[in-house]
Amino acid sequence: MSKAGGRITDPKKVNGELFSLSYGALVVQMINDYENVEDVNKQLDKVGYNMGVRLIEDFLSRTGTGRCYDFRETAEKIQAGFRMYLGFAPNVVNWSPSGDEFSLIMDQNPLSEFVELPDSLTSLKYSAIICGVIRGALEMVQIEVSCWFVQDQLRGDSVNEIRVKFLKRIEDAIPAGED
Amino acid sequence: MSKAGGRITDPKKVNGELFSLSYGALVVQMINDYENVEDVNKQLDKVGYNMGVRLIEDFLSRTGTGRCYDFRETAEKIQAGFRMYLGFAPNVVNWSPSGDEFSLIMDQNPLSEFVELPDSLTSLKYSAIICGVIRGALEMVQIEVSCWFVQDQLRGDSVNEIRVKFLKRIEDAIPAGED
Repeated sequence: MSKAGGRITDPKKVNGELFSLSYGALVVQMINDYENVEDVNKQLDKVGYNMGVRLIEDFLSRTGTGRCYDFRETAEKIQAGFRMYLGFAPNVVNWSPSGDEFSLIMDQNPLSEFVELPDSLTSLKYSAIICGVIRGALEMVQIEVSCWFVQDQLRGDSVNEIRVKFLKRIEDAIPAGED
Repeated sequence: MSKAGGRITDPKKVNGELFSLSYGALVVQMINDYENVEDVNKQLDKVGYNMGVRLIEDFLSRTGTGRCYDFRETAEKIQAGFRMYLGFAPNVVNWSPSGDEFSLIMDQNPLSEFVELPDSLTSLKYSAIICGVIRGALEMVQIEVSCWFVQDQLRGDSVNEIRVKFLKRIEDAIPAGED
């Protein structure tokens, strides 16, 4: 259902509340569809993955960015991606000693700004889509990571923390669009 | 699942492509859920209605706007709402002689910019959510309208045209949040 091809023109901006509400509608729709919350979490991650696969093309064409020399540079690009698409940049902290893992700390989260979770949904990873986007986008540039929420303000944590762990370089690139 | 209360601070802006992709995910999710396209159209309109009910509070607090004297003023406010939430204003044209109906013409549509409909979905009203938003928002200010797509670029029309028809003033206001 999607149109191919990039677009280099200046991107339109839409209001964050509108985005938050439409994302909320997607989450509610999934909650109604799936038997258990774990399946919703997986589906949100999967939707995010598919979005990441699309967004990376736009990101690369817009920034003219090249190959990352190391994982620290990858972290900087992810920061730049947040700034470009969500309008703010998370802090990159808590590097593992070997440099293969870091955290993104977000004081805010535009996806969940107007949201409170009922007790029945405390295991919902409301913003799991973000992890999926990161995973999908990086896979398109031959970097396999795992990515998950460590802290979430929706569950009472003081900040939002996403952990990103380098797994491997993908040697045989899978063309975008295949699975 | 939503938090009550308005927010008067300057709204965040998010990237239009990100919005378009997440809206696309919502539509795809619904297509997978419902037996027929007509139900998807209804559900999109309903989700939009619920968003409109929320967004109107934000719109009113942000613009400090008062009661509309006539339906032409309502049309101007809708234009302002598009500008505020989607970043562009449609043209208001094709007024009915009695002034109770007009069209919003959009050369662009950020919701469907990257979308092509397959032949099996030609009856999908992809952007029906916009009609729902208008309907829901106006209902909260005691104006009952019907609202529908007349032309849609996704179906090969040269522009997007939304028709808005005044039905009545609602005398007994229904408090937001009830049904």
